[in-house]
Amino acid sequence: MKIKRVTVTPIAFRDPPLLNASGIHEPFALRSIIEIESDNGYIGLGESYGDAPALAIQQQVQSQLIGLDPFNLNQLRAIVQATVAAHKPVSVAGAELAPGSHASKAVSNAYSAFEVACLDLQAHYLNVPLVDLLGGAIRDEIPFSAYLFFKYAEHIDSPYPPDSWGEALNEQQIVAQARRMIEEYGFKSIKLKAGALEPEHEVACIKALKQAFPGHPLRIDPNGNWSLETSIRMAELLGDDLQYYEDPTPGLEGMAELHKRTGLPLATNMVVTDFDEFRRSVAQDSVQIVLADHHYWGGLRDTQVLAKMCDTFGLGVSMHSNSHLGISLMAMAHVAASVPNLDYACDTHYPWQEPDEEVIKGGKLPFVDGCVKITRAPGLGLELDRDQLGKLHEQFLSCGIRQRDDVRQMRRYRPDWKTVKPRF
Amino acid sequence: MKIKRVTVTPIAFRDPPLLNASGIHEPFALRSIIEIESDNGYIGLGESYGDAPALAIQQQVQSQLIGLDPFNLNQLRAIVQATVAAHKPVSVAGAELAPGSHASKAVSNAYSAFEVACLDLQAHYLNVPLVDLLGGAIRDEIPFSAYLFFKYAEHIDSPYPPDSWGEALNEQQIVAQARRMIEEYGFKSIKLKAGALEPEHEVACIKALKQAFPGHPLRIDPNGNWSLETSIRMAELLGDDLQYYEDPTPGLEGMAELHKRTGLPLATNMVVTDFDEFRRSVAQDSVQIVLADHHYWGGLRDTQVLAKMCDTFGLGVSMHSNSHLGISLMAMAHVAASVPNLDYACDTHYPWQEPDEEVIKGGKLPFVDGCVKITRAPGLGLELDRDQLGKLHEQFLSCGIRQRDDVRQMRRYRPDWKTVKPRF
Repeated sequence: MKIKRVTVTPIAFRDPPLLNASGIHEPFALRSIIEIESDNGYIGLGESYGDAPALAIQQQVQSQLIGLDPFNLNQLRAIVQATVAAHKPVSVAGAELAPGSHASKAVSNAYSAFEVACLDLQAHYLNVPLVDLLGGAIRDEIPFSAYLFFKYAEHIDSPYPPDSWGEALNEQQIVAQARRMIEEYGFKSIKLKAGALEPEHEVACIKALKQAFPGHPLRIDPNGNWSLETSIRMAELLGDDLQYYEDPTPGLEGMAELHKRTGLPLATNMVVTDFDEFRRSVAQDSVQIVLADHHYWGGLRDTQVLAKMCDTFGLGVSMHSNSHLGISLMAMAHVAASVPNLDYACDTHYPWQEPDEEVIKGGKLPFVDGCVKITRAPGLGLELDRDQLGKLHEQFLSCGIRQRDDVRQMRRYRPDWKTVKPRF
Repeated sequence: MKIKRVTVTPIAFRDPPLLNASGIHEPFALRSIIEIESDNGYIGLGESYGDAPALAIQQQVQSQLIGLDPFNLNQLRAIVQATVAAHKPVSVAGAELAPGSHASKAVSNAYSAFEVACLDLQAHYLNVPLVDLLGGAIRDEIPFSAYLFFKYAEHIDSPYPPDSWGEALNEQQIVAQARRMIEEYGFKSIKLKAGALEPEHEVACIKALKQAFPGHPLRIDPNGNWSLETSIRMAELLGDDLQYYEDPTPGLEGMAELHKRTGLPLATNMVVTDFDEFRRSVAQDSVQIVLADHHYWGGLRDTQVLAKMCDTFGLGVSMHSNSHLGISLMAMAHVAASVPNLDYACDTHYPWQEPDEEVIKGGKLPFVDGCVKITRAPGLGLELDRDQLGKLHEQFLSCGIRQRDDVRQMRRYRPDWKTVKPRF
């Protein structure tokens, strides 16, 4: 079996005005959709970053895969490594919230984009669900969490009508957001993206969530936007409200010191984002939970390796997400199904994406009781909707965004907005 | 696809009177041969430990696999875990040279035995070489080393005529053993099993090998039978003669101290034999090279995880061996082919096994220039020779050995022989 066709299609989909440590989401999020077709007619799908630097590497890898055996993932990695070495990507603004666009992760990002598609193709060829190539499903219902954001009601100079979620800046609005998300999706855990407003106010929102949903484990994620002192002060206010404390303060050293001072379990998708950082974190006990993400950890198999390493070193495993569509969601679900020590509900931005902007046939994937269910359908169990793909590709071409930059976007609201780290 | 038949056949084959830290090899080595057949007629092969405790677990797992999807390795692991938990194996005499027979490794041993057979079956079903299920071959020629032993000319009360290798106790005999092995197999590295005779004498043998084969990297493996002081003293005598210094002294603490005192790269298959020991070794820099062995590290996929962990923590990877036949050799070769950072030639006892005692069709596998070559044949590329299997099973039934015990065997030569650790 040989690869005869590889297609990388950049797409853009609507993204709400969600606030974060850097600034605010732009009106469109970018992704790429990968299709790999074998000479015997099987197709594998992948979804990855659509920002210009990631896309450039994917597009250079694309043609080099023609003729490759889709089982030969080591050769795929060698091709990606050689391409990245020749291309010499540099990190650009906006990368701090998307570890996937760090230049240092160009290999693992691009490898992952094609690895998932190759595994999907393999599984279609074998007529087995993708998870069977990862050792089989330990669970077939994968729990996700309600991922709350502070947000404005609409984008500045919005190119489209406001989303249905409305403004969420105070406690009542955040609780309402959580309530709707839990009612619609059945989530059993709640994560609040923080680092955007005053820390005391964000903690007050956690307290309001605690009161409204006493049985739901809570997490707060200030994206490294709090100083060590602020993180300690907020930890005192938070008490034992949290399931884990995600990336309150920057750096492996800062997190290590925070854990030493508070004893709280710290989670991260910012300071442990590759195997070398894992090693450095272990040496100083920086974090207790790693948020895996196959998009930048080098694919589904390396995510399994990461989970085994977490088990070895006594760390918990959860899962990080960026804005994404259903192919990513299902890839996350399949690898999560295979990981024995997936100890927490996974993050997902999926509820924030609009129902008319899915690229897979049948539209958006359902959550039942907060879970994505994997089936026995071959591969990821997904098929592309070409009309939708074409529509979202047109939107990519017309939207004008080529590289996520939440700082620049916030300057449109607040011209004096600066990058300050940590801000609080 | 479902498993419809599982067969575990214990076998015994002739083993020469090889000396080691515990005593001396018995006249027969034990293994088990695993066959798994699917309802659509594919067969997968595995080879594992044939000692009584390992065999007992394998035989209890056997019938529970009927009906299992051979892709469902996570379910296989769950079955093995439950079986071991119910069986409560205990460690017995002789386990110190065979990490595979430690009770604590019962799960990873038994899992591995069936994992390899399942992967071989999967690969036959897919009509791809097994290595393709491990990401594809990075190399197709896997280097092995000449594995030298001090030995007697024949067993005491030998049940069969002497082997063709003769006695090897002094420098000239060891050099002659190396020469024959290199001439016949083309090995480019040399390992001397030590810990059997006086340390100074064993070091003198290394010096003689150095002089006779100046271009061949050398290793010595006293199997933890030297005290820290002896190990340091021998390190001074050895200077920079060694490629690595394998398990000279017992324990993670002893090895850490030895490395600190000598700076020599230390290799092990004794102090880092599972993921928990890996973690403890990292914490104190006990070893610099891990000798992987899929038989006790939990199969081919977990051996890949181990290699990635070694890469992460800056450790080298080589490969350990016990007495084994061709199915194990080919499984070692396939996983070795898939590991990017396999930095050293692998160990193998294979040349010590007699040509008329292979269980695969075509007889013993060839080495060319010291390498095993993997092909594009499906799975491991092997087929059972049922006559040979029957013959070696008969030999198992009649040989009287059920659990390796090199100490007991040495007492037949030297009734006052004691277990002293370290002996020197």
